[in-house]
Amino acid sequence: MDAAWRNFKSGIWEKEIDVRDFIQRNYTPYYGDEQFLQEATQDTKDLWAQVMDLSKKEMEAGGVLDMDTKIISGITSHGPGYLDKSKEKIVGFQTDKPFKRALQPYGGIRMAEKACAENGYKVDPEISEFFTVHRKTHNAGVFDAYTPEMRACRSNHIITGLPDAYGRGRIIGDYRRVALYGVDALIADKEKQKATTRIIMYSDVIREREELSEQIRALQELKKLGEIYGYDISGPAKNVQEAIQWLYFGYLAAIKEQNGAAMSLGRTSTFLDIYAERDLKEGLFTETQIQEMVDHFIMKLRLVKFARTPEYNALFSGDPTWVTESIGGIGIDGRPLVTKMSFRYLHTLHNLGTAPEPNLTILWSTRLPEAFKRFCAKTSIESSSIQYENDDLMRVTHGDDYAIACCVSSMRIGKEMQFFGARANLAKCLLYAINGGVDEVSKKQVGPKFRPITSEYLDYDDVMEKYKDMMQWLARVYVNTLNIIHYMHDKYCYERLQMALHDKKVRRWFATGIAGLSVVADSLSAIKYAKVKTIRDENGIVVDYEVEGDFPRYGNDDDRVDQIARDIVHIFMNYVKGNHTYRGGIPTTSILTITSNVVYGKNTGSTPDGRKAGEPFAPGANPMHGRDKKGAVASLSSVSKLSFSDAQDGISNTFTVVPGALGKNDDIFDNLQ
Amino acid sequence: MDAAWRNFKSGIWEKEIDVRDFIQRNYTPYYGDEQFLQEATQDTKDLWAQVMDLSKKEMEAGGVLDMDTKIISGITSHGPGYLDKSKEKIVGFQTDKPFKRALQPYGGIRMAEKACAENGYKVDPEISEFFTVHRKTHNAGVFDAYTPEMRACRSNHIITGLPDAYGRGRIIGDYRRVALYGVDALIADKEKQKATTRIIMYSDVIREREELSEQIRALQELKKLGEIYGYDISGPAKNVQEAIQWLYFGYLAAIKEQNGAAMSLGRTSTFLDIYAERDLKEGLFTETQIQEMVDHFIMKLRLVKFARTPEYNALFSGDPTWVTESIGGIGIDGRPLVTKMSFRYLHTLHNLGTAPEPNLTILWSTRLPEAFKRFCAKTSIESSSIQYENDDLMRVTHGDDYAIACCVSSMRIGKEMQFFGARANLAKCLLYAINGGVDEVSKKQVGPKFRPITSEYLDYDDVMEKYKDMMQWLARVYVNTLNIIHYMHDKYCYERLQMALHDKKVRRWFATGIAGLSVVADSLSAIKYAKVKTIRDENGIVVDYEVEGDFPRYGNDDDRVDQIARDIVHIFMNYVKGNHTYRGGIPTTSILTITSNVVYGKNTGSTPDGRKAGEPFAPGANPMHGRDKKGAVASLSSVSKLSFSDAQDGISNTFTVVPGALGKNDDIFDNLQ
Repeated sequence: MDAAWRNFKSGIWEKEIDVRDFIQRNYTPYYGDEQFLQEATQDTKDLWAQVMDLSKKEMEAGGVLDMDTKIISGITSHGPGYLDKSKEKIVGFQTDKPFKRALQPYGGIRMAEKACAENGYKVDPEISEFFTVHRKTHNAGVFDAYTPEMRACRSNHIITGLPDAYGRGRIIGDYRRVALYGVDALIADKEKQKATTRIIMYSDVIREREELSEQIRALQELKKLGEIYGYDISGPAKNVQEAIQWLYFGYLAAIKEQNGAAMSLGRTSTFLDIYAERDLKEGLFTETQIQEMVDHFIMKLRLVKFARTPEYNALFSGDPTWVTESIGGIGIDGRPLVTKMSFRYLHTLHNLGTAPEPNLTILWSTRLPEAFKRFCAKTSIESSSIQYENDDLMRVTHGDDYAIACCVSSMRIGKEMQFFGARANLAKCLLYAINGGVDEVSKKQVGPKFRPITSEYLDYDDVMEKYKDMMQWLARVYVNTLNIIHYMHDKYCYERLQMALHDKKVRRWFATGIAGLSVVADSLSAIKYAKVKTIRDENGIVVDYEVEGDFPRYGNDDDRVDQIARDIVHIFMNYVKGNHTYRGGIPTTSILTITSNVVYGKNTGSTPDGRKAGEPFAPGANPMHGRDKKGAVASLSSVSKLSFSDAQDGISNTFTVVPGALGKNDDIFDNLQ
Repeated sequence: MDAAWRNFKSGIWEKEIDVRDFIQRNYTPYYGDEQFLQEATQDTKDLWAQVMDLSKKEMEAGGVLDMDTKIISGITSHGPGYLDKSKEKIVGFQTDKPFKRALQPYGGIRMAEKACAENGYKVDPEISEFFTVHRKTHNAGVFDAYTPEMRACRSNHIITGLPDAYGRGRIIGDYRRVALYGVDALIADKEKQKATTRIIMYSDVIREREELSEQIRALQELKKLGEIYGYDISGPAKNVQEAIQWLYFGYLAAIKEQNGAAMSLGRTSTFLDIYAERDLKEGLFTETQIQEMVDHFIMKLRLVKFARTPEYNALFSGDPTWVTESIGGIGIDGRPLVTKMSFRYLHTLHNLGTAPEPNLTILWSTRLPEAFKRFCAKTSIESSSIQYENDDLMRVTHGDDYAIACCVSSMRIGKEMQFFGARANLAKCLLYAINGGVDEVSKKQVGPKFRPITSEYLDYDDVMEKYKDMMQWLARVYVNTLNIIHYMHDKYCYERLQMALHDKKVRRWFATGIAGLSVVADSLSAIKYAKVKTIRDENGIVVDYEVEGDFPRYGNDDDRVDQIARDIVHIFMNYVKGNHTYRGGIPTTSILTITSNVVYGKNTGSTPDGRKAGEPFAPGANPMHGRDKKGAVASLSSVSKLSFSDAQDGISNTFTVVPGALGKNDDIFDNLQ
């Protein structure tokens, strides 16, 4: 290991798997500006031209260029794939060629068949039969255990987006470990873990032992994946190119194994910068060469593709993969975790042009170096492709080696994972409270047969009492549904490789989510501060509302309604916490939808805030569109009143700013800060 | 249902699944003799001649006539198979023709491959790959979870015969339910069970819901199996022929799904007699016709064949399937459960000639009808093919609707199942106590590093203290090993159909077993009552013993040693009970080996009783061969001192009697009674 670790500062990281310790002892914060950055090389330009050409062909082909229908995707399922082997500094594709989507039936064979069928392909009938008769999938397991109530909640859209037909995602393997230690050391560590499980064979101990064995097998396959591309990754990476390549092989193995809703990368730039700094000092590579490696690495991440159904894409308004990479943030010792590599990552938006993936996410702190902040702002303006998250908030609970999975879910890398849980529709839940559990769209009895509201005008206390009961019911069904999903995912679609890049003892976040918060807040505000008249169908089901008078609306920094929003999150979260969670998962919730709010709205009847049936919800924790009339600051202020401790999986606020509104050129940055 | 249930006496059995209630209300005890029995029909003779011909060919072919290498066995995997369709009154084979062995890889692909390979066949490579890479088997799961200690115990033969590479068996589906209720009613009942699971989704509730879904799917497949043979078995059987056929389809589905070590039939004769009595009264069938159906049914049971390895056959001195059928016994109301059908079953040994399968087992009571007892004795003498078990003993705890699985394991049909657990070698355990956990054959440290005995002569108290510690260790490893096996069997090789023919709430016996009891008893007796000198190898490991003086030997009705045997069973059973058992299984043990005692002995070094390394143990609870010098009664008396409450899974005593020794002709019976 000496050769690979030459000139690194020693620490516990040498004795045990501890990437954070390695980073803290070895990284060089960068306070300078972007002047050092280099343009794309000719090879980069050539490769990217190839990608653009293939992209065009893919578009012309209707969205998919090629699909596997017979080879089941696995870490070692395919031979090597290249764009142009002679030009690629970082190699590896999910199948044997770029733009060819893999067949991943473990999550659900029907979904895999549908994804193929709707793109004009057909899964090999023998594969279909195997995965129907002999090899059960996550999806089949889930539906075997669902109760009729759960199915009703699902088909009536009060619980939606459940990961019960595809991979749950939201698990970040610590891919850096592959580079720092090499695979053999990781296998040895896992063997040691297996040797020290508890000795009484309770079912959870048996499960742990089996999972560790699966992890070890996945690591052995990871080594083979390296060999397929001509690399021996059993030992640690010896330079920055190898470090990027080893790390990418880890990530590639994960996406070859899992088609998760969000397969995020982690927080890799500062780690890799340590290698780059050493190699630059040693004269091993030039800045241009290093930028080229980064460009090629990011290019690969942009080409992550999964076989998905049109419905899936419709829900998310595109074909997102959420290859989220977290950049920046501040260390708990006060030093910024910004390095030259942070710049290089962002610089790919210039060298390759803008792109939504990988989802480059700045862990924003007021204490980030000035030059970096300016560079972020500038790149944001040029590319519209950067996500910002509040490091000052998250660092308190998550320390300085966490990353974001998907959009907002923070977790300590290699130490925490998340059971992804999609969302409960709290707006529809309010309507269930009013209609005694009858769905306002399907007219079916979906919720419990509680007493409905029978009065013509809605009374706040009456509604709140009934709403609380209904939320409690919803939280129960919701959490129990998720328990089934995660039990079955572990059983039929376990993330072997990703979990192999975690510690033995992992903290599991049991994520839930809320949709329709601003609709609920405004509806309750209308009931409280105006008069809301019910309009019933022939069977007495309330199907519409007339609001008489005005009422405070969420998004205007008005405590009367903002407090309602805050309370609802708190109450619902407490109900969620009152339930048993699979594998000791720690309940969290998120107030997060970025595009699916449209679909949620489509499936929800009229609400007492004046929103008509079918109209979209606001995204995430946003105020309803157009109701925040007091300006941006008041709108943001309302959102900021939501308690992060009640929604630790994240609160999203989608915010569009016309650059001109912020000032001119460099002023923009000053005004924003 | 009226037509099918015509002339049956009503009872709770009509409202809920309760076969015992149906039997008790409707059966006709038979006190007469065998005069009513009919000879084999010409069709029966023709079919049996065909079977004998195929058997000969099978023997000539080296033990296997044909094997599936591509079609994975399942309930509906094959088209219909016949000997001669026009002559068969009861139809159905495991594959599409008789003597063709099915491919059953769920238990373990390597075992399936080996069974094929060693008989000159080769499993289709795609099947091999699929069951290696994508569809994990019971065997693969088990080995992922085993500890090094468990593997060492297994390979050093202190724990042996574990069902970790094949089906555990020892589960009896209540196949009678198929005939009495038809499959649709059974599905409806399972749906009702699924609707009433607990509502909090703990993992065991999720597992139960998934298992019920699997059971329902298996029942639907069972209906299809009927259709494959041209029968609609959705409703109840309408006559005795249908009743036998429906019941057999249930059993056939079970053996198409599972290659268990013992796939026993249950206790079916008295149940079927109710149909026969009604049909005879109605003039629907003649006695000759009914005997023909029974002959054809039993013929089918004789043709149950599994693909197994030569090692398996070597261990069991043949290719046993343990299709055990329990006949007779006394009801808890005092009426004998002997019917004409009990005679008809035994009569197949005459009509078809003798055979070891199905394993016809008489539940013997002193209160069985005289004529039946005489008929049993007569048939025993003629066929040497009847097993006897003590109903008077088992009825106390098991009631009057239990049956024997395999050789001695009793369970209430449809209400109890067993987790089969093979055996711990208590003789080897004694040697471990002496050698501080070092195996006397491999010389490896297998057990814990307790202090060995260092004295030249063995001291009884010293040995007992160390032996107790070692037994406690062995019980812990043993039970934990079984926990892993049954967890994985449920996970990868669940008995869907057999469990579908059980109640929702099933009592699970957690069976363990003891080998080498008489060796241990005699060894401890030698240490206590004679002088035992240790002989050590160059490393101080005791490898042999010299006994100076005489000592009481187990099997001579001598309490000094019989009490030791009794105590050892009691002590070991208490250690077993001190462990956590999977799924709340209730620990039992058996003292049962019929042939494998030879292999146990082969793998065990010399013992302090004078037995030399490699010499066979006595089978089951038998005294060591030739040491019971006081005659048969004294020998039996020693065995009978073992406490049944300590070995509720059964105590076996293999006992050979030369008929002449018991008297002449009819006297034999009188002498035996």
